Amino acid sequence: MELLVKEPKTKRGFETLNRICDSAKKLFFEKGYFNTSINDITDGANIAPGTFYIYFNDKLNLYKYLLLQFSYEIRKSISLATRDCKTRYEKEYNGLKTYLDFIKNNQTAYRIIWESQYVDAQSFRDYYENFAVRYSKGIVEAQKNNEVIDIDPMNISYVLMGISNFIGLKYVIFDNKDSYEDVVADVMKILENGLFIHK
Amino acid sequence: MELLVKEPKTKRGFETLNRICDSAKKLFFEKGYFNTSINDITDGANIAPGTFYIYFNDKLNLYKYLLLQFSYEIRKSISLATRDCKTRYEKEYNGLKTYLDFIKNNQTAYRIIWESQYVDAQSFRDYYENFAVRYSKGIVEAQKNNEVIDIDPMNISYVLMGISNFIGLKYVIFDNKDSYEDVVADVMKILENGLFIHK
Repeated sequence: MELLVKEPKTKRGFETLNRICDSAKKLFFEKGYFNTSINDITDGANIAPGTFYIYFNDKLNLYKYLLLQFSYEIRKSISLATRDCKTRYEKEYNGLKTYLDFIKNNQTAYRIIWESQYVDAQSFRDYYENFAVRYSKGIVEAQKNNEVIDIDPMNISYVLMGISNFIGLKYVIFDNKDSYEDVVADVMKILENGLFIHK
Repeated sequence: MELLVKEPKTKRGFETLNRICDSAKKLFFEKGYFNTSINDITDGANIAPGTFYIYFNDKLNLYKYLLLQFSYEIRKSISLATRDCKTRYEKEYNGLKTYLDFIKNNQTAYRIIWESQYVDAQSFRDYYENFAVRYSKGIVEAQKNNEVIDIDPMNISYVLMGISNFIGLKYVIFDNKDSYEDVVADVMKILENGLFIHK
C-alpha cells in the first residue's frame, strides 16, 4: 500500500500530527472536503502552512489516512466490546450498540466516510469491502458453529452493515437520541428469528 | 413548500427543462455537485447560459428538484411493481428487486441522493424521513393484518431501507452484477422468519 503519512519520530511530532488530523476532521465535517484547503487545516491546527508537508504529500493522503484511522477505531471499539461474548448473537447485540455509541461520539466519522464516495471512489469501496471481508469471516465461523443460517456470508455482512448504518443515520445523525436500548432490542428481535438458529 | 422549478407551459419548454435536468444529472454524477457550474450544465444541454434561469433560480433549486424527481420515480416504480401483490412479504420481495433494478438503471440517482448530505443536509434528511414515513404506513397496515411482528414500524422501515441501500451499494454500485435473484432470495430468507408472522 502507498505510504499515506510520514510518521513522526518524536512525541512533539506526534502531537503536531494529531493537531493536523483534529483540525482536518473538524473542517471536513463542517465544510466538506472540497471546501477545505490545506491552509484552512494548518490555520485550524495553529501551525505554519509548510508544516503540513512534513506529514502529508497532499490533502487526499491526509483524507485517506483519516479514513483508515476511522476504520481501525470502529473495529477496535467493537472488538473490545465483544471479546467476552459467548455467542454470535451476543456479539451482534453488543456490536450494534457499540457502533451506535461510536457514531454518536464521532459524528465526523460518519460524514467523512460517506463523503469519500465523492472524494475518492476507490477509498470508499475499499472501506466497505474490507469491513465486509472481516465481517464475513466472523459469520462463517458462526455458521460452522451452527449459530447462523446457511446463506451467503457476504450477503449477511452487507445486510448487517446496512442495518447498522441506517439505524445510525436515523437515531444518531437525524434524531440525536440519548439511548439506543429499545432500537437495538427491536433490530435484534428481527435477527433473532431471521438470522440465528435456535438450538 | 418553496417553488423549486418554474414549470414550462409549452412542449418545447418541457423539452428544454428535460435537457437541463439530463445534463445536470450526468455532470453531478461524473464531477459532483460542487465541481459542476451552471455554465457546465447549459453547455452540456446545448442551450444558452441565460436559459437556465427561465426554469431555476439557482443550482441548488435544480438539485433539490432532481432529488424530488428521484424520490417520486423510485416510489412509482416500486408501487407499480407491487400493486398486484397479495401479501406484505410479496411486496417486500418485489420491492427490493425493483429498487435494485432502478438503481442499476439510474446509478446517477444513488450517487446524487447520498451527495445531498453535503449539498443540503435538510434535503437529505427530508428525502429519507419522507420515504420512511410512507414505508411505515405500509408496515402498520401489515401489522394490523398480523403479517409483520409487533415492533416500532419506524425501526422496521429503517432496517429495510438500510438493507436495500447496502445490498444496492454492494451488488449494483461496486460489483455491477447482472442479476439479483439469489441475493434477494437470501435477504428474504432472513426477513421471512425474522420479520413476518407465519399463519
